[in-house]
Amino acid sequence: MSAEPRFSQATVIGVGLIGGSIAGVIRSRGIARAVVGVGRNKENLDTAVRMGLIDRYSQDAKKGVSGSDLVILCCPVGSFEQVAREIKPYLEDQAIVTDAGSVKGGLVTRLEEIFYLKARYVPAHPIAGSERSGAEAANLKLFHGARCILTPTRNTDIKALEAVSDLWEVAGAKVERMDPFDHDRVFGMVSHLPHLAAYAMVVALTQMDGGEDAISYAAGGFKDFTRIAGSHPGMWRDICLLNSGNISDALGMYIKSLEKLRALMESGDGEALLSEFEKARVVRQRIK
Amino acid sequence: MSAEPRFSQATVIGVGLIGGSIAGVIRSRGIARAVVGVGRNKENLDTAVRMGLIDRYSQDAKKGVSGSDLVILCCPVGSFEQVAREIKPYLEDQAIVTDAGSVKGGLVTRLEEIFYLKARYVPAHPIAGSERSGAEAANLKLFHGARCILTPTRNTDIKALEAVSDLWEVAGAKVERMDPFDHDRVFGMVSHLPHLAAYAMVVALTQMDGGEDAISYAAGGFKDFTRIAGSHPGMWRDICLLNSGNISDALGMYIKSLEKLRALMESGDGEALLSEFEKARVVRQRIK
Repeated sequence: MSAEPRFSQATVIGVGLIGGSIAGVIRSRGIARAVVGVGRNKENLDTAVRMGLIDRYSQDAKKGVSGSDLVILCCPVGSFEQVAREIKPYLEDQAIVTDAGSVKGGLVTRLEEIFYLKARYVPAHPIAGSERSGAEAANLKLFHGARCILTPTRNTDIKALEAVSDLWEVAGAKVERMDPFDHDRVFGMVSHLPHLAAYAMVVALTQMDGGEDAISYAAGGFKDFTRIAGSHPGMWRDICLLNSGNISDALGMYIKSLEKLRALMESGDGEALLSEFEKARVVRQRIK
Repeated sequence: MSAEPRFSQATVIGVGLIGGSIAGVIRSRGIARAVVGVGRNKENLDTAVRMGLIDRYSQDAKKGVSGSDLVILCCPVGSFEQVAREIKPYLEDQAIVTDAGSVKGGLVTRLEEIFYLKARYVPAHPIAGSERSGAEAANLKLFHGARCILTPTRNTDIKALEAVSDLWEVAGAKVERMDPFDHDRVFGMVSHLPHLAAYAMVVALTQMDGGEDAISYAAGGFKDFTRIAGSHPGMWRDICLLNSGNISDALGMYIKSLEKLRALMESGDGEALLSEFEKARVVRQRIK
């Protein structure tokens, strides 16, 4: 990537952990001559300016995208369609619009329809995050070594795709491509299902007799297992609603697997139980 | 605790992570004049001697307990009853026998019956461990700040109880007391259930279409959630079989909770989903 700015102005909608971090990368690496933040929370936006993540901000997305040839949706994934419809008339012609949403699949199709003939939409999903949130948590190294999955379709503009790919590489991410529906199936299994399962475990505990008191005895196992139940509830509601089919399928398999182990346990079949645990351990140890 | 050894000889049966560590504490703090290890694996026992955790060892439990006034069962909890029956005739009269098993409840009753009129049994459960195992993983600080739960009954000898309590305090643990059946209900919820759920998650993943490939995308969530599925399969088989009633009850509540979230997701009830996630987050954040 050349040192020349690729964009005259970039707008990041949603200046939280992800949005603030990518805004900071764009600004510090001179990828755009100016970086505009869009958000609701003035205090958070002031923090982003103070941290040098953005040059200026607007609390109105319509004004914020005006004059930008790059727009990145980093707001909650559940708001993408509404935000897309709202900003569409104010976008520069052929502006590149990309996102950092955890759900792709049919949402990509719907966003392509909204931006059709107006802007060039490139769907992206940087795999990064933490339980911290807000611009305050942003840092320029957040994407170092992380994966960023682009899910282009036959409608995706090639030049726009390359520009977005370059952007994430400059941010330090390893860029990959995947079909948007494959993406949702895979992440339904390895990310969305575990989050739902962690929430369910904590919910279950509170409903068990003496469960709330038992929490004080929660050691490593429970803590690790449910750490992700501390994640942002609104974000996970959005993900569940947008990827419900895949998550429900994965959940069905998971419940079957739980029922199977339960049956083996109740029938006292130690040998079969051991064999299941050993299989699981072998698979688990392949994940570094 | 005085510097005087409380015991003339201590025998630790099962010189792994827990057994090796408590043996090392006893030896280094002079709690017994000699520490004998018992195990099957000669190489592991040689390591324990080399590391100074034990003075000597025997591969025969019957010989190993001879002359000891303190015996600690640190072998797999599923072998406790068999080992207890095997060593009973060779125990010194009124020797203190204790253990480090993760299951208490009815097992305590059965062990009390075996040792009745011969030795003084004190049930104990130090809450420590890691995925590492073997004497090699032992360290004298393993129990620093950890909880050790004693589950005495009306049959427990008071002096023996105090001696075992002192032992764990010297090891750095915070000693608590709990009813053995309460213990199993609580740990069924906060420890055994999460382990089973982690195994089930990995098993389910391998059965999903494309699941094995999806593993390479497993990020923080799945990794944290299933880390404990790398735990020792034999140990968890034993725990499941010995505490199947409580674990099955907890599992039933968990499956109900999963089904509930699934139904909310499928019906698109974002508000109710959000409320469940928020409740879970509040509870989870109480665990430090």
